[in-house]
Amino acid sequence: MKLSLDAMGGDNAPDINIDGAKQALDQVDSLEKLYLVGDEAELKRRCDAAGFGVDPRLEIVHAPEVVGMDESGLVAVRQKKHSSMSIAVDLVKDGVCDAVLSAGNTGAEVAACTIKLRLLQGVERAGIVSPIPNSRGYLLVSDTGANPDAKPSHLVGYAVMSAMMARYIYGIPEPRVAVMSNGTEDCKGSDFSKETHRLLRHLADKQLLPFQFIGNREGHDLFESDMDVALTDGFTGNILLKTIEATAKTFSHMIKDGIKKSPIAMVGALGMRGVFRSIGGRLNADSVGGCPLMGVKGVSIIAHGSASARAILNATRMAEGMCRHSVNSRIVDAMAPINEELRHLAEEESVK
Amino acid sequence: MKLSLDAMGGDNAPDINIDGAKQALDQVDSLEKLYLVGDEAELKRRCDAAGFGVDPRLEIVHAPEVVGMDESGLVAVRQKKHSSMSIAVDLVKDGVCDAVLSAGNTGAEVAACTIKLRLLQGVERAGIVSPIPNSRGYLLVSDTGANPDAKPSHLVGYAVMSAMMARYIYGIPEPRVAVMSNGTEDCKGSDFSKETHRLLRHLADKQLLPFQFIGNREGHDLFESDMDVALTDGFTGNILLKTIEATAKTFSHMIKDGIKKSPIAMVGALGMRGVFRSIGGRLNADSVGGCPLMGVKGVSIIAHGSASARAILNATRMAEGMCRHSVNSRIVDAMAPINEELRHLAEEESVK
Repeated sequence: MKLSLDAMGGDNAPDINIDGAKQALDQVDSLEKLYLVGDEAELKRRCDAAGFGVDPRLEIVHAPEVVGMDESGLVAVRQKKHSSMSIAVDLVKDGVCDAVLSAGNTGAEVAACTIKLRLLQGVERAGIVSPIPNSRGYLLVSDTGANPDAKPSHLVGYAVMSAMMARYIYGIPEPRVAVMSNGTEDCKGSDFSKETHRLLRHLADKQLLPFQFIGNREGHDLFESDMDVALTDGFTGNILLKTIEATAKTFSHMIKDGIKKSPIAMVGALGMRGVFRSIGGRLNADSVGGCPLMGVKGVSIIAHGSASARAILNATRMAEGMCRHSVNSRIVDAMAPINEELRHLAEEESVK
Repeated sequence: MKLSLDAMGGDNAPDINIDGAKQALDQVDSLEKLYLVGDEAELKRRCDAAGFGVDPRLEIVHAPEVVGMDESGLVAVRQKKHSSMSIAVDLVKDGVCDAVLSAGNTGAEVAACTIKLRLLQGVERAGIVSPIPNSRGYLLVSDTGANPDAKPSHLVGYAVMSAMMARYIYGIPEPRVAVMSNGTEDCKGSDFSKETHRLLRHLADKQLLPFQFIGNREGHDLFESDMDVALTDGFTGNILLKTIEATAKTFSHMIKDGIKKSPIAMVGALGMRGVFRSIGGRLNADSVGGCPLMGVKGVSIIAHGSASARAILNATRMAEGMCRHSVNSRIVDAMAPINEELRHLAEEESVK
């Protein structure tokens, strides 16, 4: 795999990207080439300082501009054509790289990849797939922010893309896919979720889905559940994901505050250090590293703004898996008969 | 206040309702009358067993049917006209009671109250307001499930209703109200949330809002934030609320599992018992007791299915506050000029 890394992306850029690149080159065997994209002089200086820069697999590509974390995504893509992010994506567009990785502005990364790389054949909209730890390993939630005004047919695409990721990246042969709703009963939901449910049920009855469709699931089912993939529009999905993060954070703050206030609790906390460490490790976003923006040509991994070097390493591993298993071409193959059936269904219903 | 209590509602009915009624009669001074609605023979027997039944403020009202927790709400209301829930709501409809309280099937309670009690003047849709503990005390999230296909104008109503609750129940003179979105910037959101934002901004500019509109907030802002009210449609709001509950639950399960596996952690946990107890108390839904279904004529409080007697007591206190402060008539007063302006705006825009 040839990887293009937006070295200037993220709250702690470029250092974590340089450190992450070093770890990735050390540990990801099939990484043939890694392009570090950003201010050439600065990157050279920092690579030298980090004792890193003589690896022939590493190449620095100059980019004079940086996309800020709070800039409008679309504006950034249109106006900063020489940003590290833009040039990093160009390397995939031009066929130099297989995958691009950035911990920068998510909106700008989604816009840059969608506009420059274009969509896979048969995919209507790109979506972000976010793995969250649950009782079955990881639950893949899609979309978590690329497409706030999704249509039901977009969610059919997200179902296929997430299922392929579950199968090839997480090794689940027959992923269980559900529609997020305000209750598990079939009758529950918004007009949008009910129509999504209806389309998936129809496709399941026709045996066209490369996964098991298990109906509706609700917020209570996120962690101790029977689902591998949870489908939602990007608006609700983004709120869902950030709500999990905020709740976990406030819970751990409450524990820390309680410990500070009581000497007995302080001693108790020493005994519980191992437990807290293990929970922290399990919930740490860096162990996943990044979330793929699925549905675009090429592989695009979006890391958290506060990503560490370990996150960059793990995101590189995810990119490598997506490339090695040709996940994109499997998505294209799976979508063809599904889209044909959806067209038939729409024609039939327009006649009625 | 005269309260009608659905004695058969909830996972642990009728015992928790009977115990809760006893506590409420003991502790809520202005509770003039409490009607326990359910199977008369059973309630009498249980009240006698609990050494309770001679209080002249208590009256048992017979209802031969019970709405199951998994029944369709609308079907239950239409087919079980003699259910404890239905008759409990009738007592408010007929002017016998000021407020109704049930820990039963939420969908059925929403349907029964909306159909039987009708909406307040100027209110388009009823909504559930759920208080969740945050750094400012309580954050009121609305709607959390009554209206999955809300329109932007419905959220304007939820804003006013929640703000009145924040002011009169939680003592916040100038509540800060935000629209939940997938990012805090004004440009972020779905078409739905952007239109809601636009209407509220317009009404704020005209100085017609009885609260401070602070723009968009995201999932990360739920707990450590500057907002008192978070607005969302009932679909996303229900997922948000259940996601908080699920995350808190999984977090505490992880801690418990960790403790079980290590003798050192077990000893540590003893020292931390006070901290865990205080967090458990703060997060316990029973301390709020119930969530009002706002926008209907009369006061309706929906308690959690797993409500305890303490939850019934606290929900009674909330009902009492809603009655004492005439929250409903304040909502009607606040909605009149807002609806007039929204009509003007719609007319102006239809001309363009």
